Amino acid sequence: MPFGAPSERSDAARNRERLLHAARELVNECGVDAFTMDMLACRADVGKGTVFRRFGSRAGLMMTLLSDSESEFQRQFIFGPPPLGPGAPPLERLIAFGEARIKFVEEFGELARAASEHSPQNRHDAPPVVLWHRHIEMLLREAGLDRDPWLLALSLGASLDPERVLHSLREHGIPQERLAASWRELVTRLLKDG
Amino acid sequence: MPFGAPSERSDAARNRERLLHAARELVNECGVDAFTMDMLACRADVGKGTVFRRFGSRAGLMMTLLSDSESEFQRQFIFGPPPLGPGAPPLERLIAFGEARIKFVEEFGELARAASEHSPQNRHDAPPVVLWHRHIEMLLREAGLDRDPWLLALSLGASLDPERVLHSLREHGIPQERLAASWRELVTRLLKDG
Repeated sequence: MPFGAPSERSDAARNRERLLHAARELVNECGVDAFTMDMLACRADVGKGTVFRRFGSRAGLMMTLLSDSESEFQRQFIFGPPPLGPGAPPLERLIAFGEARIKFVEEFGELARAASEHSPQNRHDAPPVVLWHRHIEMLLREAGLDRDPWLLALSLGASLDPERVLHSLREHGIPQERLAASWRELVTRLLKDG
Repeated sequence: MPFGAPSERSDAARNRERLLHAARELVNECGVDAFTMDMLACRADVGKGTVFRRFGSRAGLMMTLLSDSESEFQRQFIFGPPPLGPGAPPLERLIAFGEARIKFVEEFGELARAASEHSPQNRHDAPPVVLWHRHIEMLLREAGLDRDPWLLALSLGASLDPERVLHSLREHGIPQERLAASWRELVTRLLKDG
């Protein structure tokens, strides 16, 4: 958190939010690959230097956009209402998690793909990935699957990998609902009889 | 197949095999990333031009090395002895398939990773990948799982993705046996009660 007079801080926060809002719009309109910092400066009516000072680089901006969305997603599965959040049986929570994750990838997957491209490290060990693997592991344990549930969670998580889900949606034209139904079938069979 | 006198043809085949043998040795000794066409020309005691004429490019050579290994792997699960080949119940064949695939990645995974790098297309839709997804799908059907078995096969296949398996083996230090045990647990629970 930067220090400073309240008005300065809230100005900075407002400007940051305005830039992020413009960036989100541009990404939605023309896709991650076509997005440039020049376009953002132009859309937000600021100098290019301002944009770079704020986010460091194009990749830094992408990570910020993704991180905001991931935080909101995390909030939902950790604190949100059931069945995604706590309060439902583990199988229902797992089903809801997969459905929500597929929706998330449909919405933010280009960013996730761009952020993990060319780096198995980012793809498998980025903090949000680690967190949602732990979440799946916890639900598997709750459901009584105690034989190496972490590794089982990694295997299940593999089917929700952003690049893979995007590839199914975009290249194979598989509808979101069919992917979600397959996830439901997978975890339901897996958790049957504890 | 090239035409020509039998001796010419067998000379060409022998030379090709000699180059591939040297390439395999070099990849084993120093890894895929360090491998260069110069090293191969030097090891096989031929001109660099010969190596390029034979395989087109470094990537072409990598594809050839991988393709030879994939063909052998395919031969084993399609025609080989049970439980990997036909003649065993579907669950036993699935277990054997995952175990064999993990061993395969341990041995040839760097090539597979190099061949699919920077290309979701190669990663998800290369002919050998499509073939072994169909194989998993067929076994799921045989076991009575008839709700979208192809998509279920893709999800199971995701956990055997070369980059992912390599990452588990190399970066997380998970032993091959533990990966295989987790695969066994996954498919056994999945196929329980048909």
